[in-house]
Amino acid sequence: MSTTTRARLSPDERRSQLLDLGVRLLATRSLDELSIDLLAEEAGISRGLLYHYFGNKHAFHEAVVRRAADDLITQTAPPAEGDPLERLLASVAAYVDYVLANFEGYLSLIRGAAGGNETLRQIYEDARSTLSERIFTEDAQGDVIPDTPRNRLVVRGWAALTEELVISWRSDPAGVTQAELLELIAGSLPALVDLPSR
Amino acid sequence: MSTTTRARLSPDERRSQLLDLGVRLLATRSLDELSIDLLAEEAGISRGLLYHYFGNKHAFHEAVVRRAADDLITQTAPPAEGDPLERLLASVAAYVDYVLANFEGYLSLIRGAAGGNETLRQIYEDARSTLSERIFTEDAQGDVIPDTPRNRLVVRGWAALTEELVISWRSDPAGVTQAELLELIAGSLPALVDLPSR
Repeated sequence: MSTTTRARLSPDERRSQLLDLGVRLLATRSLDELSIDLLAEEAGISRGLLYHYFGNKHAFHEAVVRRAADDLITQTAPPAEGDPLERLLASVAAYVDYVLANFEGYLSLIRGAAGGNETLRQIYEDARSTLSERIFTEDAQGDVIPDTPRNRLVVRGWAALTEELVISWRSDPAGVTQAELLELIAGSLPALVDLPSR
Repeated sequence: MSTTTRARLSPDERRSQLLDLGVRLLATRSLDELSIDLLAEEAGISRGLLYHYFGNKHAFHEAVVRRAADDLITQTAPPAEGDPLERLLASVAAYVDYVLANFEGYLSLIRGAAGGNETLRQIYEDARSTLSERIFTEDAQGDVIPDTPRNRLVVRGWAALTEELVISWRSDPAGVTQAELLELIAGSLPALVDLPSR
């Protein structure tokens, strides 16, 4: 990147660009492996300047993971039109694509969140809430998933199922195609919602 | 406990008794809170004797968690007779009872396993494999769940869903009764298995 290009960017733009670079680096590494040194080297700027933008390593990691979560939310937005189940399938397909393309970072977020890192847990919970909330608000007529306490619980369970299916499938597809995986994930939500309750 | 009682026990029996005590203490505490000091105090024996039985704190924790996992597996064994779905429901009911009765220890196992503690991860995976394997071997005719790669994946997803549902429900039942929770968990497995694949 030339000095000329850099000079055109505002500090906010420059910070944002560094976050994008951080997210790209996180795709193939765990959070522990994403050091300030590495980012400085890849960005071609000094460590000092990075500390200027992010304060410390912890804040830098937090900002990168938040950006990654925001990207996931943006990229999995369902199409505005169409049959509810087709829209759900499209959203799930985008989710699976994102996870597969950013697997190492995704796994380190999940492990960090589950393992008791409070910052990661909060970002993870916020992202999951946003994704879950979308399921209810996108389906405003409640045709597919009525907004009830039981269904809110079901969606939480479904999110955990989805996570596990993608991670397990990636390590061993066992003859299941990606299309079958998507059908399974997308189809399971209405199936869970439709289960009879006592 | 009297010295007389203690004298009658073999070292293996004594060790086993200490593990049971460890599991009971773990029901209401995280693994981090389960110290050698606490166990020594509760058992009324010296720290030195505990180190004699378990070697070090890490080995002690590992042995307690393994015992807890074995207890879970024993207590969730389905009844030998009956309709497959009724037997699944009975097994799920025992699982939920166990988790609710041993919640803090259960949570610390899951978090430790997910957070990258290799020993805990291995115990957790072993227990999950045993529980999953049981689903296929108990249903030897394959009437409910044929043993296919796809269904093995489904069972993994279902296990994650079950874990999430119990943990979420415990923190906020949101009007869902325990009986409804059990129906939801037990009913979801055949529903997931029956989903059409492309």
